[in-house]
Amino acid sequence: LMCCSPLAVQANEQLIELSKDSKNWIMPTGDYANTRYSELDQINKDNVKNLQVKWSFSTGVLRGHEGGPLVHDGVMYFNTPFPNIVYALDLNNDGKILWKYEPQQDANVIPIMCCDTVNRGVAYAPPEGDRPALILQYQADTTLVALDAKTGKVVWEVLNGEHKDGSLSESGTSAPMVFKDKVLVGISGAEFGVRGHVTAYNLSDGSVAWRAYSTGPDAETLMDPENTTHLGKPVGPDSGIATWEGDQWKTGGGTTWGWYAYDPELNLIYYGTGNPSTWNPVQRPGDNRWSMTLFARDADTGTAKWVYQMTPHDEWDYDGVNENILVDDMKINGEPRDVVVHFDRNGFAYTLDRATGELLVAEKYDPKVNWATHVEMDPNSDQYGRPQVVAEYSTHQNGEDTNTTGICPAALGTKDQQPAAYSPKTKLFYVPTNHVCMDYEPYRVSYTAGQPYVGASVSMYPTPDSHGGMGNFIAWDAAKGEIVWSIPEQFSVWSGALATAGDVIFYGTLEGYIKAVDTEGKELYKFKTPSGIIGNVNTFEHDGKQYLAVLSGVGGWAGIGLAGGLLQAEGAEAWQQAVAGDRAPTDQQQAIGTAGLGAVGGYAALADYTALGGQLTVFGLPD
Amino acid sequence: LMCCSPLAVQANEQLIELSKDSKNWIMPTGDYANTRYSELDQINKDNVKNLQVKWSFSTGVLRGHEGGPLVHDGVMYFNTPFPNIVYALDLNNDGKILWKYEPQQDANVIPIMCCDTVNRGVAYAPPEGDRPALILQYQADTTLVALDAKTGKVVWEVLNGEHKDGSLSESGTSAPMVFKDKVLVGISGAEFGVRGHVTAYNLSDGSVAWRAYSTGPDAETLMDPENTTHLGKPVGPDSGIATWEGDQWKTGGGTTWGWYAYDPELNLIYYGTGNPSTWNPVQRPGDNRWSMTLFARDADTGTAKWVYQMTPHDEWDYDGVNENILVDDMKINGEPRDVVVHFDRNGFAYTLDRATGELLVAEKYDPKVNWATHVEMDPNSDQYGRPQVVAEYSTHQNGEDTNTTGICPAALGTKDQQPAAYSPKTKLFYVPTNHVCMDYEPYRVSYTAGQPYVGASVSMYPTPDSHGGMGNFIAWDAAKGEIVWSIPEQFSVWSGALATAGDVIFYGTLEGYIKAVDTEGKELYKFKTPSGIIGNVNTFEHDGKQYLAVLSGVGGWAGIGLAGGLLQAEGAEAWQQAVAGDRAPTDQQQAIGTAGLGAVGGYAALADYTALGGQLTVFGLPD
Ligand SMILES: O=C(O)c1cc(C(=O)O)c2c(n1)C(=O)C(=O)c1cc(C(=O)O)[nH]c1-2
Ligand SMILES: O=C(O)c1cc(C(=O)O)c2c(n1)C(=O)C(=O)c1cc(C(=O)O)[nH]c1-2
Repeated sequence: LMCCSPLAVQANEQLIELSKDSKNWIMPTGDYANTRYSELDQINKDNVKNLQVKWSFSTGVLRGHEGGPLVHDGVMYFNTPFPNIVYALDLNNDGKILWKYEPQQDANVIPIMCCDTVNRGVAYAPPEGDRPALILQYQADTTLVALDAKTGKVVWEVLNGEHKDGSLSESGTSAPMVFKDKVLVGISGAEFGVRGHVTAYNLSDGSVAWRAYSTGPDAETLMDPENTTHLGKPVGPDSGIATWEGDQWKTGGGTTWGWYAYDPELNLIYYGTGNPSTWNPVQRPGDNRWSMTLFARDADTGTAKWVYQMTPHDEWDYDGVNENILVDDMKINGEPRDVVVHFDRNGFAYTLDRATGELLVAEKYDPKVNWATHVEMDPNSDQYGRPQVVAEYSTHQNGEDTNTTGICPAALGTKDQQPAAYSPKTKLFYVPTNHVCMDYEPYRVSYTAGQPYVGASVSMYPTPDSHGGMGNFIAWDAAKGEIVWSIPEQFSVWSGALATAGDVIFYGTLEGYIKAVDTEGKELYKFKTPSGIIGNVNTFEHDGKQYLAVLSGVGGWAGIGLAGGLLQAEGAEAWQQAVAGDRAPTDQQQAIGTAGLGAVGGYAALADYTALGGQLTVFGLPD
Repeated sequence: LMCCSPLAVQANEQLIELSKDSKNWIMPTGDYANTRYSELDQINKDNVKNLQVKWSFSTGVLRGHEGGPLVHDGVMYFNTPFPNIVYALDLNNDGKILWKYEPQQDANVIPIMCCDTVNRGVAYAPPEGDRPALILQYQADTTLVALDAKTGKVVWEVLNGEHKDGSLSESGTSAPMVFKDKVLVGISGAEFGVRGHVTAYNLSDGSVAWRAYSTGPDAETLMDPENTTHLGKPVGPDSGIATWEGDQWKTGGGTTWGWYAYDPELNLIYYGTGNPSTWNPVQRPGDNRWSMTLFARDADTGTAKWVYQMTPHDEWDYDGVNENILVDDMKINGEPRDVVVHFDRNGFAYTLDRATGELLVAEKYDPKVNWATHVEMDPNSDQYGRPQVVAEYSTHQNGEDTNTTGICPAALGTKDQQPAAYSPKTKLFYVPTNHVCMDYEPYRVSYTAGQPYVGASVSMYPTPDSHGGMGNFIAWDAAKGEIVWSIPEQFSVWSGALATAGDVIFYGTLEGYIKAVDTEGKELYKFKTPSGIIGNVNTFEHDGKQYLAVLSGVGGWAGIGLAGGLLQAEGAEAWQQAVAGDRAPTDQQQAIGTAGLGAVGGYAALADYTALGGQLTVFGLPD
C-alpha cells in the first residue's frame, strides 16, 4: 500500500507542520485549506501605514505574473510566466539569486494559452529519504519538473499533456499541490476542446499514481456509480457521458486549471472543473457533466466521493475552477459544519458540507448578477441545486448568431482565478471580485484538433447602473450568504487576497497598487508597484521580522490587451483571424473590442495606468 | 541672422532659467554644465537614511535603461531602450500615464547597436511662438522626433543617419541637447566603420542648421585651419584627413554618442569623439584625427574653436565621448580658471581651459591605469599633450594576432558613458568608475558597408592585485588631479551620479542598488531596486517635496551578457559569427568569454544578482 507508507505520511506531516508555522509561506495557497490567512501580526492595522519597500527584483519576463513566492528557511522561490523561469532568492542578501532554472520550451505553446502565458506558482515538497526537498513547477508546455530545492538541478520531469501539431492543445498554468507522497496537476485548454483531467504523480520518481478525467466513462472519471454522489444521490453509471450528445464529451472541456485544496483528515482533494467546449451552448445540448463541477476525490485513489455541478449546461463560460476554502465548525443555522466555500465565476458563492457535498448556502456575492434569479435550495425540487436561468440572458434560448446583451457577470465571472482569503478571527471571507457585464453571441464552430474551439463573440464593459468601476473588494459572510462590506474598484481585482492576525487584509489592483484595509474595509495603506498586480499577496517572517511579498506584472485574462499586444489593431486582427476565422470583425474598433474573448475592449483603459513587466516587491516595517 | 533672432534667445533663456530652478530636472544632464548637481536639500545627509520608495513604474521594455527622467511642471518624461517608448507620467497621480509614444522602428537596427539597445534620454524644448513645448527623442534608427510635450503628438521628425541594407550602419543612442533655437544629436556606429558627426537641427521645423564631421576635409569638419587650435596651435588645412592613410578617414569612426555641454556665454558646445575604426591599430597608421578628441564648437555655425585629442592613434578603444563638466573659477595653482573637466575612457582626467583648450591637468583617476605612464605637460615638448604609451601594453607594437595582456583599463575605460557629478559646495567631482583590465588581440579586417568592422578580440576581468571588484566610486579633485576618496564596488558603477546641496551623493550599481554616501564617502543608505542600474539618478521637487528618481534595467555594454542573451552559448556563438567571422572561437567557454567585445565574460557574475527589466523608482522622505 504505497499510499499509506510511513514515509509518505511523514513527508505529508512535515508539510502540514511547515504550513502551520506562519513564518513560512510553504504552499501556493498558504495552506491546504486555501485560507490565505497568516497568524503573523507584527504588521498590524495600526502600523501598516508605515510599510516600506525593503527590496525588489525584476524577473526579466514581461506579461502576466500570477501566483506568489514561497518562503522557507531563508529562501524565496517563485516562477515567471512563459518561459517559466524559476528563481531561488536569498533572503539574507536582498534577494541575491541562489539559483535560476530556465526550461527550454517550444514557444508554439503561447498561441494555445487562452488567457495570457501565466503560471500560478511553484510547490515545495519536503525531503524524504534519499530524495532532496523539491521545487515543483508545472510549465506552459505541461512539463511537470521537480527541481532540487537546494541547487535547482532537475531531479525528474514528466510531460503531463499533449500539444503536438494537429493533436490536442493542452497547456499548463496552474500551481501544483503536493500532498502525501504525490503532487497534483491539472490541465488547461477548454478553448481548444481539451478534455479536462487532474493527475497525481509520485514525488519519488514522477510516475503516474492516478489520473481522473472530468468527462467520459467511469473508469476514466474515477467515479463510482453507486457511491459517488451528486447532491446526496448516486451519480449512476457513466455519468460523465450520459448528459452529452454522442462523442462530444471527448472534446468537452471541463479543464482543471484552478486551485486545489486538501483535507488531510477526510483525505479528500477538492477542485473545480471549467467550461464545457464549445462556448456555443446550442451545439452541445445536455448538462455537460462534469464540466462546471466541484469535485471531492480520495487522495490515494482519485475516486470521486462527491460532485456538485454549479452551472449545468453553461451558456456563459462560467468556469467552476475557482479555489475551495475549507473552514471547520462554521455555524450555519446555529449548527457547526465543516464546510467548503467556493466563490464561483457564475456569481454565486457556495457553502457546502465538505464531507458529503450537501449544499448549505448559495447566494449572489455581487447583487448585479442577473443571469439566474437564485439557486434552488429545496431538496425535493427537481431543480434542486440548479441556478434558475433568466430567459432574457440565456444565450442558448436566444440562439446562435443572436447577441444576448447585458449579461452579468461577464464571462470572466464575478471572480476568476484570483483567490479569496478567510480570517478565522473575523470569520469572514475577503474576496477580490469582477464587476463586469457582457454581450455574448454564440455561433457554430467545428472541432479541429489543435485549433481554437470557441464559438462565441463577446464584449465586456463595467456593470451598468453601478459605480462605474469594473471591480469590488468585498467581505463575505459564508454562513449567511451576505456581503458585509464592499469597496468599489476601477478595475477588477485580479490579485489574490491575504488576511492576517494583524487585522489587516491585503490585495493588489490592476493599476499596480497594493492596498491594505482593516476588517471594516477602511483603506489603511496603498503603494503603486511597478506594474499591474495579478499575483497574490503573501507574507512571511525572516530574522524575526514580518514581510509581505507580491509579484507585479499586468496580464492574465483581464490584462490580455496589454500582455498579448491586442490593443493594437495588428495584434487584435491576428487574434480574430485565429479564433473567429470567417467571423472575424471587419471593423478595426470592433476587432479590438472583442479580441481576447472580450477582455481587450473591456479593460482598454488599463493602458493609462500601467505597462508590462514582472517584478517582486518585498515590504516591511521601518527598522 | 537666424541664430540671433530675439525669439531664439528667449527660448534659450527660458531653458536656462528652468535649469537653474532645481525643482525641475529639465535637461538629460541636469544643466548645460553637466554638473548633475541639485540645489535641493530637503533630503540631506541626516535624513537620507529614511528614504522610501514612493511609487514605481515598469516601462514594459527589457534590456538596458540608461538616462533618467526629466521633470517639469508636474510631469515626468522619459524613454526606454529600443523600441524607444516615450512616457509622460502624472506626478499628481502616482505616475498615471498622461501619454505614451511608441515609434514604429525596424528591428534590424538592433544588431548594428554595439553596446545594447540603450538610449540616454529625451530633451525638453520650451514653447516658442506658435510652436508648443517639445519633447525630443533621438531613436535607435536615428530618427529625431519632436513630440508635443502636452499630447505626445508628433510635431516633426527627421532621419539623421543612414542604415539601409548594405549602406552605412548608423544608429542613435545619445540624448539630444537643446540650445538656443536648435537641438544637437550625434551618431553611433564606430564598430561598423561609421564616420562620426554631430548635427544641429532647427527646433522650428527639423531642418538642418549645421553638421560637423569628426574626420574629413575642413568643409565637413567645420574647421578653420588658421583659427581652430589644438593645444594652442592652428590645426592647419584638412587636419581631419592629414593623419589618415588614403581614404581611411571615410570609415574612420570618431562617433559622437556621448554627452554634450554648452557654455551660453562663450556660445561654445563641448563634446568628444569616439574610437577610430577598426579596433586594429596596425591597419590605420597615424594619429587618426579627430577621433578621440574633445571639440569646442561655435553653437551658431558649428565651427570648431579648439580641439584636443586625448588618445592619438587609439590602440585600446578608449572612446573620448565622456561628458564634459563646465566649472567656473576653479583655482588651479592659485589662479581661477573657467574649465572643462573630462574623465576619459583612457583613465586620465583632464582639466582644460574651456575658452582656449589649454591643458591644465591630466592625471590618472585610477592608479592602476598602466597603458601610459603620464600625459606630457611640457608645452615645449614634441610630445606635449600626448599620453606616453608603455610599449608592453601597445597593441600596435605587439602587433596583429598577438594577444596583449594585462592592459588597464579595459576597452570600456576607467569610465564609460556613466556621467559624473560635481558639487560646487565641496568643489569635488563624484565619479562612477570601472576597475577592469583586459587582454586585446588585434587582427586584420576589411570594411564592408553594413557589417561589423571590429578587428580585435578582447577579454575583460577585474583589475588584478586590487580589491577584487570591477569598480570604484571616487571623489576627485580636478584642480590638483587627485583622488580624494574611493569606494570599492563589486561591479563597475555604470550609473550616473548625482550631487546635492543636502551633502549627499547618489549613484546606482549594476546589482541594482541605489546608494547614498556623504561627502566623505560614507554610505548612508542603500536600496535594491528591481534590476541593475545603468540609468542616472535625478532629483526634483513636487508639491514642496524633494524626490529622487532612477531607471533600473540592467544592460549597456557592461550588462550586454544579460541584455543580449550572450551568456548562453547559442547567443554568444551567433555574436561571434557576426562579429569575428572566421576568427570566431571554436571553444564554447571562450566564445562566451569574449562575446560582446569582451564584456560578457567579464561581467558574467552579474547574473547572480539581477535580471532584465525596466522600471522607474521614485524615492522620497516619509510624509
Ligand atoms: O478553459 C481553460 O482551460 C482555461 C484556462 C485558463 C488558464 O489556464 O489560464 C483560463 C481560463 N480557461 C478561463 O476561462 C479564464 O477565465 C482564465 C483567466 C485566466 C487568468 O490567468 O487570468 N486564465 C484563465
Ligand atoms: O563607437 C560607437 O559608436 C559606440 C557607440 C556606443 C553607443 O552608442 O551606445 C557605445 C560605444 N561605442 C562604446 O564604445 C561603449 O563603450 C559604449 C558603452 C555603451 C553603453 O551604453 O553602455 N554604449 C557604447
